[in-house]
Amino acid sequence: MRLATLEHRVVLLLGDEVADIATASDGAFGPDPMELYEQWDRFVDWASGPVTATGPLDLSLLGCPVPMPRQVFAIGLNYRAHAEESGMEIPTVPAAFTKFPASLSGPFDDIELVGEMNDWEAELVVVMGRRADRVDEAAGWAHVAGLTIGQDVSDRLLQFAAAGQFSLGKSRRGYGPIGPCVVTAEEVADPDNLGIGCSVDGVTVQEARTDDLIFSVPALIAELSAVVPLLPGDLIFTGTPAGIGLVREPPQFLQRGQVLETWIEGIGTIRNRCV
Amino acid sequence: MRLATLEHRVVLLLGDEVADIATASDGAFGPDPMELYEQWDRFVDWASGPVTATGPLDLSLLGCPVPMPRQVFAIGLNYRAHAEESGMEIPTVPAAFTKFPASLSGPFDDIELVGEMNDWEAELVVVMGRRADRVDEAAGWAHVAGLTIGQDVSDRLLQFAAAGQFSLGKSRRGYGPIGPCVVTAEEVADPDNLGIGCSVDGVTVQEARTDDLIFSVPALIAELSAVVPLLPGDLIFTGTPAGIGLVREPPQFLQRGQVLETWIEGIGTIRNRCV
Repeated sequence: MRLATLEHRVVLLLGDEVADIATASDGAFGPDPMELYEQWDRFVDWASGPVTATGPLDLSLLGCPVPMPRQVFAIGLNYRAHAEESGMEIPTVPAAFTKFPASLSGPFDDIELVGEMNDWEAELVVVMGRRADRVDEAAGWAHVAGLTIGQDVSDRLLQFAAAGQFSLGKSRRGYGPIGPCVVTAEEVADPDNLGIGCSVDGVTVQEARTDDLIFSVPALIAELSAVVPLLPGDLIFTGTPAGIGLVREPPQFLQRGQVLETWIEGIGTIRNRCV
Repeated sequence: MRLATLEHRVVLLLGDEVADIATASDGAFGPDPMELYEQWDRFVDWASGPVTATGPLDLSLLGCPVPMPRQVFAIGLNYRAHAEESGMEIPTVPAAFTKFPASLSGPFDDIELVGEMNDWEAELVVVMGRRADRVDEAAGWAHVAGLTIGQDVSDRLLQFAAAGQFSLGKSRRGYGPIGPCVVTAEEVADPDNLGIGCSVDGVTVQEARTDDLIFSVPALIAELSAVVPLLPGDLIFTGTPAGIGLVREPPQFLQRGQVLETWIEGIGTIRNRCV
C-alpha cells in the first residue's frame, strides 16, 4: 500500500491513478493524513477490501505525506561509515535530536538555502502507525505504518554554533522534504535492507544499504519507546550514510540552482531544487 | 488571565472558583486546551467580557495545561551563571533541543525516576498564542499567550550518552511537569524580570531572576522564528539558572521519595514527588 498527500488530502496510489480516501470510503475516513494514522488498524482493515480509483495521479501535485507529526525523532551517526567519517565515536544509545515539525516539506518542494554551509543527508524515514510504549525490538515493525524518504538538510554552521545541539540547524523551514509516498513494509522486498542514496545535479554523493544501520528500525523503536511513547504519525529520521559534503576534501555544500535527488529502493525518489 | 486544565477541560481560574470555558462560552470554544491556542485572539476577545464561574477550584485536579504542543523548544545554557557552572561557552545562538511532547506531565504529577543521575532544572516556559514567522524581537511578546512553570527534569547519564544530543535524556516520560496554570503577561509585574527557583525537600537549590537570561523571551522568539515558524500552543522552555545538582561537590541527584517544588513569581508553584 502506498499513501500520499494530494492537494492536502490523503490518497492511495493505484498505479497511475489515485483513490481519494475520504471519497472512496464514503467519509468513513477524513481527508487529513494525520487523522488516518490515529486510526491505522481500522484503515488497514478498510484498505484490504476493494478500493476504486477516483482520479489520475499527477506526481507534481504531491505534498508532504506526513505534514504535522507530533514528534519527529532524528538520529545522528547511525551508519558506521558515517560515524567514522564524522570522527565521532559509535553511539551506544541513539543520538536523538529533532527536526522541528514545521520544517517538514513536500517531496518536490524547493529548498530555500540560508547561508553557505548547507549539506545533504539522505535518510530512511519511519512513520509510526501504532502508539509504541516500551515496545520490544521483536515487536517494533508491528508498530510501523510505513516508510518514506527524507532529506535531513543541514545548515552545518547553525548546527555546530548551537553549543553542539543539532536540532535548530536541521530545522530551517523547508529543510525536511519527505515523500513521495508512505510505503507499507510488506510492499518492499526486505524492509531491513534497502538501497539508499542521493545525487547532486546527477552526481551520486551517497549510496548505501539500510542493513548498515547501527540501530535498525525495530531497534530504534525499542530504544526510543523505552524513554518516551511514540505516537501514531510520529516520524523517525533514521540517520544518514557516509558521503556528506562537510567532510569532503575540499568540503562541498549545496549551491543555489542545484537539484538534489534522494532515492530508496522500493519507495521512489524525491527531487528538490535548491534556490 | 489564568488558564488551566481541569479533568482534561480548559478552564479559567477565578480566585477559588473556575469557569469551564466550553460551558461558560455556550460552546463557542471546545474543551481542548490546544484548540484554544489556535483561536487565541478570538478567545482573548471573548474572555475580556464577563465570565461566570461554573464550579469550585480543586488544585489537586489540575492537569498539564498544554498537553500536546506541536513543537517544544528547550534552550540550554541560557543563564550566564549556569553556562559558567557547566563549564561551557556562552552560546551565540540558542542551544535549542527538544523535550519530546509525550514527556510532558501535570503540575502535581509524580516523577518516576529511571536510573540514579536525575537532576532538576527550574524553567520559565513560554506558551505561544500566535504563529510567529520571522518575528522581530520588538514584536515577540505580542505572539505569546502566556507563561507557565516547567521542570526540565534531566537524566544526566542519558543526556551525555547520546553523543552530546540532550533531547532524549530530557524526555523520559513524566520528566516535563508544567503548570499549574498559564498566566498572561499583563498579570505579572514585569514579565522580563521574574523570580524563579526550586527546592528539594524544602531546601532551596536554585534561585534567580529571569532578567539574567542571555536570550530573553522576545529574543528567543526572534531567534527561533528566524529559523522555523513557531505555532500556537508551542512551548519554549527558556533554560535553567545556576544551581543544578550535577556540578555540586559532591554531585547531588534526585532521590525517590523527595519532593521537588518549583516556583515563579506571579505564576505559582508546581510540586512533584519523585518515585
